[in-house]
This record gives sequence, structure tokens and C-alpha cells, in this order.
Amino acid sequence: MAEGSSGAKGRPLPPGTRIGILGGGQLGRMLALAAARLGLKVHIYSDESGPAFDVATEATKGAYDDGASLDAFARSVDVVTYEFENVPVATAERLARSCPVRPGPAALRVAQDRLVEKTTIDGLGIPVAPFHAIGGLADLERAMADEPAGAILKTRRLGYDGKGQIALTPGADLAAALAEIGQAPAILERRLSFAFEVSVLIVRGLDGAVAIYDVPRNEHGGGILRRSTVPAGLPGAVLARAHDMAGRIAAALDYVGLLAVELFYMGPEAPEPLLVNEIAPRVHNSGHWTIEACGVSQFENHIRAVAGWPLGSPARHSDAEMVNLIGRDVDDWPALAATPGVCLHLYGKREARAGRKMGHWTRLAPIRSGLR
Amino acid sequence: MAEGSSGAKGRPLPPGTRIGILGGGQLGRMLALAAARLGLKVHIYSDESGPAFDVATEATKGAYDDGASLDAFARSVDVVTYEFENVPVATAERLARSCPVRPGPAALRVAQDRLVEKTTIDGLGIPVAPFHAIGGLADLERAMADEPAGAILKTRRLGYDGKGQIALTPGADLAAALAEIGQAPAILERRLSFAFEVSVLIVRGLDGAVAIYDVPRNEHGGGILRRSTVPAGLPGAVLARAHDMAGRIAAALDYVGLLAVELFYMGPEAPEPLLVNEIAPRVHNSGHWTIEACGVSQFENHIRAVAGWPLGSPARHSDAEMVNLIGRDVDDWPALAATPGVCLHLYGKREARAGRKMGHWTRLAPIRSGLR
Repeated sequence: MAEGSSGAKGRPLPPGTRIGILGGGQLGRMLALAAARLGLKVHIYSDESGPAFDVATEATKGAYDDGASLDAFARSVDVVTYEFENVPVATAERLARSCPVRPGPAALRVAQDRLVEKTTIDGLGIPVAPFHAIGGLADLERAMADEPAGAILKTRRLGYDGKGQIALTPGADLAAALAEIGQAPAILERRLSFAFEVSVLIVRGLDGAVAIYDVPRNEHGGGILRRSTVPAGLPGAVLARAHDMAGRIAAALDYVGLLAVELFYMGPEAPEPLLVNEIAPRVHNSGHWTIEACGVSQFENHIRAVAGWPLGSPARHSDAEMVNLIGRDVDDWPALAATPGVCLHLYGKREARAGRKMGHWTRLAPIRSGLR
Repeated sequence: MAEGSSGAKGRPLPPGTRIGILGGGQLGRMLALAAARLGLKVHIYSDESGPAFDVATEATKGAYDDGASLDAFARSVDVVTYEFENVPVATAERLARSCPVRPGPAALRVAQDRLVEKTTIDGLGIPVAPFHAIGGLADLERAMADEPAGAILKTRRLGYDGKGQIALTPGADLAAALAEIGQAPAILERRLSFAFEVSVLIVRGLDGAVAIYDVPRNEHGGGILRRSTVPAGLPGAVLARAHDMAGRIAAALDYVGLLAVELFYMGPEAPEPLLVNEIAPRVHNSGHWTIEACGVSQFENHIRAVAGWPLGSPARHSDAEMVNLIGRDVDDWPALAATPGVCLHLYGKREARAGRKMGHWTRLAPIRSGLR
């Protein structure tokens, strides 16, 4: 069952009602801007102030385990959603007692633990990268023996943007690797040689209707997304398969809102052309181009879904390229602002720490018909 | 001279700095959303709370003649702009003593008085609808004798959306008409038979650079804009003339920001194909389609100009139609939200009074090449 998504399915929340968002980062900021467009108000709740605070009707700085503060937040809003997948499940469950939480806590539970995530997806008959559960050194030694081409040790919980991951080759010091991740429960994932990475941005409404944006191709550097481009150049049959996989995952989670499914494209000759890498139960960096290239962005469609509105069309009118501004990249803003065709987004973060997402830009181009 | 636009011309205001906006309506709201995209903060100042308050980093409810409150506002921001043309000039001048006001108070002075506006534009050699200054009944009687086809009596000040206007035909009770406008200073404008109305949305940077959006065709009902469409279907030479006229007005006012120039298109056979109806020293309802159809909207370009940034490209990637939701029109929001291709904007106003702009929608279409 999916708590929170089974509330009053009948009527969309009318303009003027208030959406609660857990998390105050740039995704919360872009969600708040999209909600504003629809006449909906936003109340941000976060344990630290951030870029979303500047554009919200109301913002609360509070701990995710501060029951009284959470209860007051829940009373002030008509529905709660979140902008990051590491919201404590207990927080979501507490809020769900007073008002709908969408996506429901079940999606958080699956997405927060790589082992549960992979087991769940595998259980749907959807291929994932081969993996082993790692409880300690004995598991890791046994698992590495199966991975002569090398593998990646990933903590089961709290990893993002390449954090909590260690690449291992045969002969590596496995005890040291486990020490580096603090002996945390982990998985070992086979290192794959894929053609490129893509993501499916699927949004599912309260009534189960789905809309799928065109699939972007994603390039990473240092574990962080650098660039997304649409179209990805996937063969049509592979694209259809990607859509089908994402649809099955969203339905299995009785998901409400935008879900990102990251996939490895193994190339046209591979027996399994697509493997799921991971899912993110939220709006996703690889969908930022939808702000300019679509009439209804991923942010607006997430808000529509959680507010029980009909979904907007995910059709795009342009090809698009999105590039992240990471750390000191943002210092280029005057040149980017002066470059014709660059649509610049800055998140208003004060400090440009290394690896921090400070903004992005999108460039549109006419659709190259026939390319897909 | 243009006060306020002659400040520090060198450096653009960096992300994180604060833009002050006078007025809290939907235009202020859309300006605030555009500023947020660029990492700029917004402080709204208005004598009544409104839709812009919900999305601003800070909002002050204060009278436009409350000196202490205005001074505190001016201290809190790096530049001031406005979303409506009836900002008292004294307010703008007071603020301009502490920080740049863009567009400068000179633009307000011209736009607030129909007689000064028409005289200024006429003085640039740019055609306007024939008009007479009306100080009282004798003026009006004399003027009506020159207008056998009928004319429109308009108060010099504080008219918008058809308010403060009375259509007069020969034989009308002129004393009653003057009584109806409270004996206010007025102009009498010849009733013209034009082909259709268009507007030029021109943005001028701090450095004098200009960018011009494609010209929309505008349809009014009851004095209120109902629909704007691009392309307008103007012949190329007429379009070039419209651009030239707007450029000369913006330069004459040493304008900074977005200026809307409303024009009557008299048809291909007319000796003067275009006459200026009026100007609005602010972002304009007839430019709302730029949010979806352009990489950089009129709102973002206004913010860029007042913050001293380089202007963004006004190029559009799509044809567009924008329709206002006026008064109870907004009750259709569930059907509009469910219509594929409709990009819906709701302003979050509580009460749908008759004639009140509650939202709008835009629909994009591929560019019909060769049509212009």
C-alpha cells in the first residue's frame, strides 16, 4: 500500500491552497516557482535555510525529528511533498497522519536503501546491474571473487552525487574500503561498461495517469551530473522499453508525483539494452531542461500530481541541452548572461563550495526531425 | 535627463542582491519569479498586500507617501523598479535619492499624463491619434466640433483598462460627460477606424542596448486586453516601422527596462500605417506569451535591465496565443488545467471581481514559416 496517496482522490486542491515541501534546496525552489504559477502557495520546511526560503509564502526552519514543529507544519498545509529522498521515513509517516504525503512514505523506504531498491526493481522483472548485499568483510571477499572486472562498493543509505561510493579492483584492500565507509551496510555493484546513461522522468497522477518526458542522455563527472541532452539518441524500441520499465516501477510504488529512473544504456548489441541504476522519488536534475523546452515542466507536473490536478502534457517543442554550474563554475555568470540563447538559472546560494550545485543553464535548438 | 538610470553603469548587480519592486500585483509576482531564476532577491513594497507578496523574499505593506517606510525600503534594496505606471512621481523621486530607480521618474511623468505623453511622442515626429487638450466645457465643445465621427474623452491621469474613458458622438451631453469624469483635466481623442491593435515590447539596457520582442496583435473587450497573438501578421515594412518608433521613444526617455508601446495598425492603405495609442513604462499584459515562447521572457529581461545585466535574446521559438482570465473566467481552471497544450497561469487572487485579471493561459504552436 502507499500511504498518503490514498486520500481524497476526487477533487484537485484549488488555487490558494498550500503545498508543504520538505527540503529547502534548489529543487524546492524550482517547485515553489512552479506552484506559484498555478496560484498555489508553498510552505517550505527544512532543517537549514536554503534557496527555497526566498520564494516561498512561508518557511520553517526545524529539525526533521521535531514533532511539535512538524505537527504545526502539517496543520498549515493541504498536502506535503519533498525535494530530497533522504527525508526520514518517520518524518513522512508522522506528517501522513495529519495530511496526505505524496509520493507516499513507501517510495522513500524503497529509494533510501540501495538493497531494498534493487531487490524491489529486480522483483518486478526489471534488469538492474548485478549486485551483492554486503554485511561485512566475509561478504565483500566472497562478492569480489565474482567480479574480476572490478566493482563499486556503495553504502545502502545516504549516498548521492557519488558520495559513499568506492571503486574496487581485484586485489584492493577490502578491509580498508569497509573502514572508509564506516562499516556501513552496503552493496557491491558490478562495474559495467555501458554506452551512456539516460533517465526517464515519469510523472504519475493521483488517478494513476502517467506522463513521460522525452528521455535525456546524462553525462557525469566526479559522480555529479554535468550535462543532459534531449534527444538522447536511443533507438525507438529501447526508448519504448525505458518508458515501460519506468511505468511499471511507478505503478508498483503506487507513486504520485515525478519519479526519475536512472538507466545504463548498454548499447544496441547488448542482450539487455537497459539496466536500472537507481531511482529518485522526486524532481530530478536531469529534467531541468523541461522548464524551457516544454509547456509544462517537471516541476509543474510534480506539483499538479501532488495537488491532485490533471497532469500537463510532457511534450517538448525544442531540442535541449542542460549544463550544471558546479562550485566555482558559477563565477562565469556574467559571460553566460551575455551569451545569446543561454537560459541561465542561479540558485541564490551564498557560498560556491566545491561540488555544490550553484545553478545551471539550458540552451534550446529546433527539433532535428528524423534523428530519433 | 533620466534620473536613476545614470547611476553606476559599470557592473551588473550580482546574484544575491535585492531588487525592490513597487506594487504587489500579478506583474510584480511574475517579475519576482523571473528575478528568482537569476538568483536575485525581491522586496515588494505596496499599499495593499497582493499576489506578489507570496513569492517575494520580503514584502512591505506601506503607503506610497509614508516617507519613513519608503526610506527603510530604499535602504534594504540595491535598485528599485515598479510594476504599475501610477506610482506617484514623488515616491519615485524620494527613493531615487537613496538608490537607483529604473525606469527613471521621467518615464513615469510622461506615462502618467495622457497630454504629456501624446505631446512628447508627437514631439518626436511619431504619429499619434489626433487629440485636443480639455480643460473644461468650452474646450470640449470646440473640440467636438472638429470630430464629426465621434471621439473619446479620456482623463489625463489614472486611467487604465478602459477606466476614465467616455465615448462621445456628436450631440452627446458634454457637460454630463465632464461631470462623469469629475471635471478632471482630460483629452479628447479622435475615434479611429483601425485594422487592429498591436504592441511593441522593447527592453533597453543600462548601456542603451535594446532588444525587441516580436510584435503581438491585441484584442480588447470592454477596454480590457483579452487576447494577444504572435505573429501579428503585420507587413515587414510596418513591423520595421513599429520597431523604429519604439526605439526612438525608449531612447528619448533614456529608458531602462521593458517599455510597452501600444499602436493602432491603420491598414496597408493608410497614409500613416501606425499611430501610437499609449505607452506603459513597465512589463505588459500583451507580453505574457514571452514566458513560454522565448528563452528569456519580458519579465526576466526587465529584471536584467534594471539590474544592469546584459539583455537576453528576445527571439521566440514558437508562435503563441495568450488569453486573459478575467473575473469569473477563472472558474474554468479545472478544464483549462486538463486541456493539452494550455500553459495555465493563476495569480492567486482571492476574489474574482468583475473585470479583475485573475490569470491567463498561453498556447504554443510551431512557427508558421513564411507567414511574416
